[in-house]
Amino acid sequence: MSLVVVGSIAFDAVRTPFGEREKMLGGAAVHFSLAASFFTDVRVVGPVGDDFGDQQRSVLEGSGVNTDDIEHVDGGQTFFWKAHYEFDMNMAHTEDTQLGVFGEFEPKLSEASKSADHLFLANIQPDVQRGVLAQIDSARFSGLDSMNLWIDTARDSLVETISGVDLVFLNDAEIRQLTGEPNLVKATRSVMEMGPSIVVAKQGEHGAALFTKDGFFALPAYPLETVKDPTGAGDSFAGGFLGYLASQDDWTDDHVLRRAVVYGSTLASFNVEDFGTERVSGLTREEIDERFEAFRRMTALEGAAA
Amino acid sequence: MSLVVVGSIAFDAVRTPFGEREKMLGGAAVHFSLAASFFTDVRVVGPVGDDFGDQQRSVLEGSGVNTDDIEHVDGGQTFFWKAHYEFDMNMAHTEDTQLGVFGEFEPKLSEASKSADHLFLANIQPDVQRGVLAQIDSARFSGLDSMNLWIDTARDSLVETISGVDLVFLNDAEIRQLTGEPNLVKATRSVMEMGPSIVVAKQGEHGAALFTKDGFFALPAYPLETVKDPTGAGDSFAGGFLGYLASQDDWTDDHVLRRAVVYGSTLASFNVEDFGTERVSGLTREEIDERFEAFRRMTALEGAAA
Repeated sequence: MSLVVVGSIAFDAVRTPFGEREKMLGGAAVHFSLAASFFTDVRVVGPVGDDFGDQQRSVLEGSGVNTDDIEHVDGGQTFFWKAHYEFDMNMAHTEDTQLGVFGEFEPKLSEASKSADHLFLANIQPDVQRGVLAQIDSARFSGLDSMNLWIDTARDSLVETISGVDLVFLNDAEIRQLTGEPNLVKATRSVMEMGPSIVVAKQGEHGAALFTKDGFFALPAYPLETVKDPTGAGDSFAGGFLGYLASQDDWTDDHVLRRAVVYGSTLASFNVEDFGTERVSGLTREEIDERFEAFRRMTALEGAAA
Repeated sequence: MSLVVVGSIAFDAVRTPFGEREKMLGGAAVHFSLAASFFTDVRVVGPVGDDFGDQQRSVLEGSGVNTDDIEHVDGGQTFFWKAHYEFDMNMAHTEDTQLGVFGEFEPKLSEASKSADHLFLANIQPDVQRGVLAQIDSARFSGLDSMNLWIDTARDSLVETISGVDLVFLNDAEIRQLTGEPNLVKATRSVMEMGPSIVVAKQGEHGAALFTKDGFFALPAYPLETVKDPTGAGDSFAGGFLGYLASQDDWTDDHVLRRAVVYGSTLASFNVEDFGTERVSGLTREEIDERFEAFRRMTALEGAAA
């Protein structure tokens, strides 16, 4: 099985109470594809400028991510984002955003990307996301991420885009904002009525919840003592989730979906242990399996002490 | 086994988007004891005024709660609290607080209360909590709840009180505030270094996490479509937790503690389904067992669809 992700490739400047990086590889599509690469073949689609070179490409390729569909824009600059986090690292404080080539991004999928079984639309303007959906066979599995900005400025377009995908990742506040419904159970049902059969509520340090037509599953976040940089946690979650899903035969199986939540949470937990891609790009499958088991122990009702 | 709770008995006036009550039975000790009554013998210790009558007493006694140690203060008024909740019901907006007889409360335990195996100190000024601890055999199991007010105004006293109990219930923000440590794992360890061997982090709509010396367990909240009144959810959680613990032989057993979290979450979930004590006072053990199983299904990694 194969998986394509369309989204931002970026350079990030990030300062947290535990250190600082002036220019490191980042972007939603990067975090997603590195996380997903442990489970399935991944192709990454996104634009870069002249400042994006072999060093950055090798981080992706070193994890087995196919970079053939990265679009290099001559004379352009790669998306740049600068932010810092306070001691309470639940919220990023953006200092600078330079869209660069990402501002003019009009993704055109290659034949190889069009034939992938699974598609993930990282957080982009919803018209652009829909432009990608129009290029693929509607029978393919597709998921998307979005954000409060698009709920504020392009809600109708976002709802139309959501109607075309199988899975939506949003945080609790975004789900409530999108639907105008404060009760999360009712709100996720409203999102499902727009089209998707799966809604994953991202809850940051409190984990994630999976809503399907008939089921509910929730998983707390892994209790980490070391959180150096939360940037990309949500995209790493989505990458672990969809990467695992793409490796399985039946994405409607409740057991498969629950394990996907655990793999997503596992990759997110590793992602935040170090800056940018530094932890996940050096991760081993053995470490992932160990943390999966730690999740199982820490949530088991009859299990031994964790 | 038997359990004593010392804390407020109150009348609450509460308005939420789903209704309003002008004067209903409430208070931490009331919510706690009703929740605990399903598992063990409970005695409630707290002061009431002339406005507290047979009707209120019968709610407690109807659930098997022993009310012999309720202290009636002649000419006094029962603690009164008035608040409302917005559509996002995560926070109560207090409109009025009249401490009444609770303001002068100096608990003196009866012989029967002193001989109880388990003690819960609901949220009271920490000097008063310590006054209760001084009256019981230190070998008894004891737990306490507190709040940001006492961390702000009486931190040293609170830390001293915490050093004398086995279990502390606080929410995430309070644990961070008390310890000055933003990382919750490190912060709970700091609380344990004060004395208790168990810390339960209350996370509201996101559930609860159990920290012990060697273990960690987390449980999401039950996904409710109907939340009418969140008042008393934390005390109902504590009541279900400690009530179940008091019914078991070995409170250091990790399996027992995990089940206690589930029973606590179960009682909290019922509590918020209706105003004040209205849901829990009419609850059956069968309903509790059904919801316990629903929790098991919704968190099981290999379980069937919930």
